Amino acid sequence: MINFKEDEKLSVLNHSCAHLMAQAVKHLYPQARFWVGPVVDEGFYYDMDLGDEVIHDEDLEKIEKEMKKIAKDGKKIVRHEISRAEAEEMFKDDPYKLDLIANMPEDEAITIYTQGDYTDLCRGPHVDSVKDCRFFKLLKHSGAYWKGDKNNKVLQRVYGVCLPTQEELDAHLADLEDAKARDHRKIGKDMQMFMFSDLVGSGLPIWLPNGFTMRRILADYMMDRELNSGYIHVKTPVVANVRLYKTSGHWAHYRDDMFPAMDMDEDEAYVLRPMNCPEHMVIYKSQLHSYRDLPIRIAEIADDFRYEASGALTGMERLRGFAQNDSHIFVTPEQLKEECQRVLDLIISVYNDFNIKDYRFRLSLRDINNKEKYFGNDELWEMSETALREVLQERHVDFYEAPGEAAFYGPKIDVQIRSAVGHDVTMSTVQVDYQLPRRFELTYIDENGEKQTPIVVHRAILGSLDRFFALLLEETKGVLPLWLAPTQIVVIPVSPDAHREYADKVIAELKKHKIRVRMDDRNEKLGYRVREAQTQKIPVEVVVGDGEAKENSVTVRRYGSKEETKMSLDDFVKAMLDEIDRKGK
Amino acid sequence: MINFKEDEKLSVLNHSCAHLMAQAVKHLYPQARFWVGPVVDEGFYYDMDLGDEVIHDEDLEKIEKEMKKIAKDGKKIVRHEISRAEAEEMFKDDPYKLDLIANMPEDEAITIYTQGDYTDLCRGPHVDSVKDCRFFKLLKHSGAYWKGDKNNKVLQRVYGVCLPTQEELDAHLADLEDAKARDHRKIGKDMQMFMFSDLVGSGLPIWLPNGFTMRRILADYMMDRELNSGYIHVKTPVVANVRLYKTSGHWAHYRDDMFPAMDMDEDEAYVLRPMNCPEHMVIYKSQLHSYRDLPIRIAEIADDFRYEASGALTGMERLRGFAQNDSHIFVTPEQLKEECQRVLDLIISVYNDFNIKDYRFRLSLRDINNKEKYFGNDELWEMSETALREVLQERHVDFYEAPGEAAFYGPKIDVQIRSAVGHDVTMSTVQVDYQLPRRFELTYIDENGEKQTPIVVHRAILGSLDRFFALLLEETKGVLPLWLAPTQIVVIPVSPDAHREYADKVIAELKKHKIRVRMDDRNEKLGYRVREAQTQKIPVEVVVGDGEAKENSVTVRRYGSKEETKMSLDDFVKAMLDEIDRKGK
Repeated sequence: MINFKEDEKLSVLNHSCAHLMAQAVKHLYPQARFWVGPVVDEGFYYDMDLGDEVIHDEDLEKIEKEMKKIAKDGKKIVRHEISRAEAEEMFKDDPYKLDLIANMPEDEAITIYTQGDYTDLCRGPHVDSVKDCRFFKLLKHSGAYWKGDKNNKVLQRVYGVCLPTQEELDAHLADLEDAKARDHRKIGKDMQMFMFSDLVGSGLPIWLPNGFTMRRILADYMMDRELNSGYIHVKTPVVANVRLYKTSGHWAHYRDDMFPAMDMDEDEAYVLRPMNCPEHMVIYKSQLHSYRDLPIRIAEIADDFRYEASGALTGMERLRGFAQNDSHIFVTPEQLKEECQRVLDLIISVYNDFNIKDYRFRLSLRDINNKEKYFGNDELWEMSETALREVLQERHVDFYEAPGEAAFYGPKIDVQIRSAVGHDVTMSTVQVDYQLPRRFELTYIDENGEKQTPIVVHRAILGSLDRFFALLLEETKGVLPLWLAPTQIVVIPVSPDAHREYADKVIAELKKHKIRVRMDDRNEKLGYRVREAQTQKIPVEVVVGDGEAKENSVTVRRYGSKEETKMSLDDFVKAMLDEIDRKGK
Repeated sequence: MINFKEDEKLSVLNHSCAHLMAQAVKHLYPQARFWVGPVVDEGFYYDMDLGDEVIHDEDLEKIEKEMKKIAKDGKKIVRHEISRAEAEEMFKDDPYKLDLIANMPEDEAITIYTQGDYTDLCRGPHVDSVKDCRFFKLLKHSGAYWKGDKNNKVLQRVYGVCLPTQEELDAHLADLEDAKARDHRKIGKDMQMFMFSDLVGSGLPIWLPNGFTMRRILADYMMDRELNSGYIHVKTPVVANVRLYKTSGHWAHYRDDMFPAMDMDEDEAYVLRPMNCPEHMVIYKSQLHSYRDLPIRIAEIADDFRYEASGALTGMERLRGFAQNDSHIFVTPEQLKEECQRVLDLIISVYNDFNIKDYRFRLSLRDINNKEKYFGNDELWEMSETALREVLQERHVDFYEAPGEAAFYGPKIDVQIRSAVGHDVTMSTVQVDYQLPRRFELTYIDENGEKQTPIVVHRAILGSLDRFFALLLEETKGVLPLWLAPTQIVVIPVSPDAHREYADKVIAELKKHKIRVRMDDRNEKLGYRVREAQTQKIPVEVVVGDGEAKENSVTVRRYGSKEETKMSLDDFVKAMLDEIDRKGK
């Protein structure tokens, strides 16, 4: 997705288009006064005082029409430098522009831009002619308090976007439509995946049955992958004594991001956890360990809570309560490299199962000019930075180094993926930590019978389950691969009465193999029921009538296809199980 | 388990035995002074001031020996009534007895009991002769502050138990041993199922890998049973705005049992939930419903939090954070009876899978003499009480009626099981609720297009997963049926080097079928490894050597059996899968 603020040429073009829009508005609403018309990430807007008039959807077309007329006329855009006194005289009837002039630094030159009958106070620069702005689109409108202050008047804000050619504009508008169709909040709502409730609280997701089914598949998938890779799974409490976070250091350094503490009896305070590292340290510490027991890989699908500002909350992407696909691995220094290699291999293998291809690795190192900022000695840092670099090199993955970006407790590898709507997201992370095992006084007995401190590797693969779920919805537009779809198959008897019995048999056979299937035996026309299964994005539709019942077969149609295939029920079950087994591949 | 306080005859006997013990102690520790020697649930104790002497384990034997001698001698126990002045004179050198006398009501007769050389101030009654007390056992000792006050002296407390015959004593001691072996806290620790940590907090369980595996099986089992019975599963946040619990009424009526609220910005307060009913009401309310959509069965394995007093916390039985196997079913009045029947059938079917046989139903009705205490009108109550009674009658289950025990919002059925250690536990519950749907203003559209209020059925089957887990450990002594065992099979190569390859093949085959299996290929003697698998209570041991590798077979031994069976690997896998499928049956 284009960022119009970041591209210099497009930025100028869009700012000129804001002036073009203002000129058109002035033609249509002679009483109009203008506040500011800046370029933003998605194009431009202008805040306008139209007296008592309020912009409605249909007004946008009217304004666009007038803008086209002006653009066609093709007046030059001319810059003039004027004195402060001239400016104040020129805009003496316009309180908004006077306010802007009053707030300009004394020593700054004041410029105005004129195009035909319209002149605006503006720092510029602008394109040469209004003609250059002719490929535009007005996107939306809203009310906006003057200067963002609730006590001020509500101005009319209209958003638009401008590109150099019609082709580019068309492509961009198509991208916008696509992003809208991919918005996980919309898909999640349409498919009844999740909801939020003001009464329950902002940023606290409620997983509805369809979403919960998918979440359960994701959690089971990751747990089983991890168990097969030598991890052990635990469940630890989401609330703990504040003393735990004092021990871990979170209370001193992370408290602002935590929920408030709960004051209990007996001078104790409890708090919702922002991370579950401390709990895993406690588990490690509950037993004696020999070097022979390491690595120990403690994993958890862990509910964590962070007190994000309500303005930062975004659907399932940014929440106050979310579940991490988390693990803490306890290793000897000698095991560090091989263990990080294993984690990297697991990450790549999981991405492969989800068909994630657009990603790269970032190796965050310490800033060697500010060594005192970091915990641990040179030897440790050099050993672990070298280990992580070698892991990336030996796996021949796309990576770059980011000096100074390491955590104070150790270097790390982050995996950044590019989401379907063009966002860069840090999904997986592998972080070396020297400090936490020391704060909890963790030990193992080495070959010589001496106590040593293990290194901890913090590791997340899917990141938060919730955000990963959002990414999947955006990637697939809700058209999920068979293994993840909440309902995998819908069975439609041609005649609900005559064919229900055979449909029941088909369903029983599928359920025997734990396939998620349901029947649509409503008294509606066949075509209607087939179409509705498509609307609901169910991957596979099975239609059964006389022929199928007689032959013990099914007629199968895939989502998005008009092709129908008849096959025996046995073959169909095998094909489904095979596809589920293959996952995204 | 016998409750010695509740049985009148045993109560007298045990109190007399306390005197017998005091007499023996006086012989052995002439400086001894005695405070009180009451009967308690498990027998008796006596609190004694032995000067500087402290009772140790080996002293109990010594005291028992002296008690036997006195009992054999067989002195009568003789009662005398004396005046307060006489009593004060008699015990003038004993500050403990003087304290007791001083606290006796003025008008109460003072009695003393004498047996041979020992006299005690006592209300009685007692048995006729110390001989009657000869079948006893001293159980344990501890220190106890005089009058329970930390500022007072620590007295020596010795516990014992007495029965009328040696046979009864032996049986009781065997029961005690059995209960100790069944204590889920001990089993859970020995089998590394769960732990608690002071740093994390009291009553907040940490599920270790073995326990988590079993918990996951329990949760998956219940979710799948429910999904197959037409329930839908959701996940809702464990923390919510206080306004939610004000709406539900919990804030007004249940606040003392809740964790303290967290004060957030913007005049909001959040709180850990004690129950998840309100969240399920919010889900129901998020959509419009027709009578045709009902019943709607919303289920959740829901983490809930209650602020139990720290003294009330008991292992996994009584926690501050636990997971409910909860559901709320929304029905029309016409559907109530059939739906309760379905719930009852599911309860019975689940109990059957867990081999639970010792249970009965309690039907809690309103107190018809105090109708004003209850929510809703006579018609509703009569309808639903009749429906619940008919359900129990038609299913021919063992039930009794408890008038006045209904909740104020509706009648209920509780299912009480008798645990292996003899506790009566309310495990499942089916509660009719008229009130909550009204508080949340829930509706459905009936056949005539009119808005109606649904009835809510609160329903739990396993109760809390945590407590059910404790009950299972107590029932099985940790010897779990195959389908629930964290490790189902251990494969032991006769020679770790020579037979590891074939052992790997066996394990791969078992893992293909998701059987939880591990290898013991340590360089230890075969016999040692076989014994250790038994110690760890692993249901099945497989030994493989040359013969097995050649024939593609396995030699199988079950926990607790010395019998070995050789069978083909294929047959073995089939047998295991079949047994897992049959569950407890």
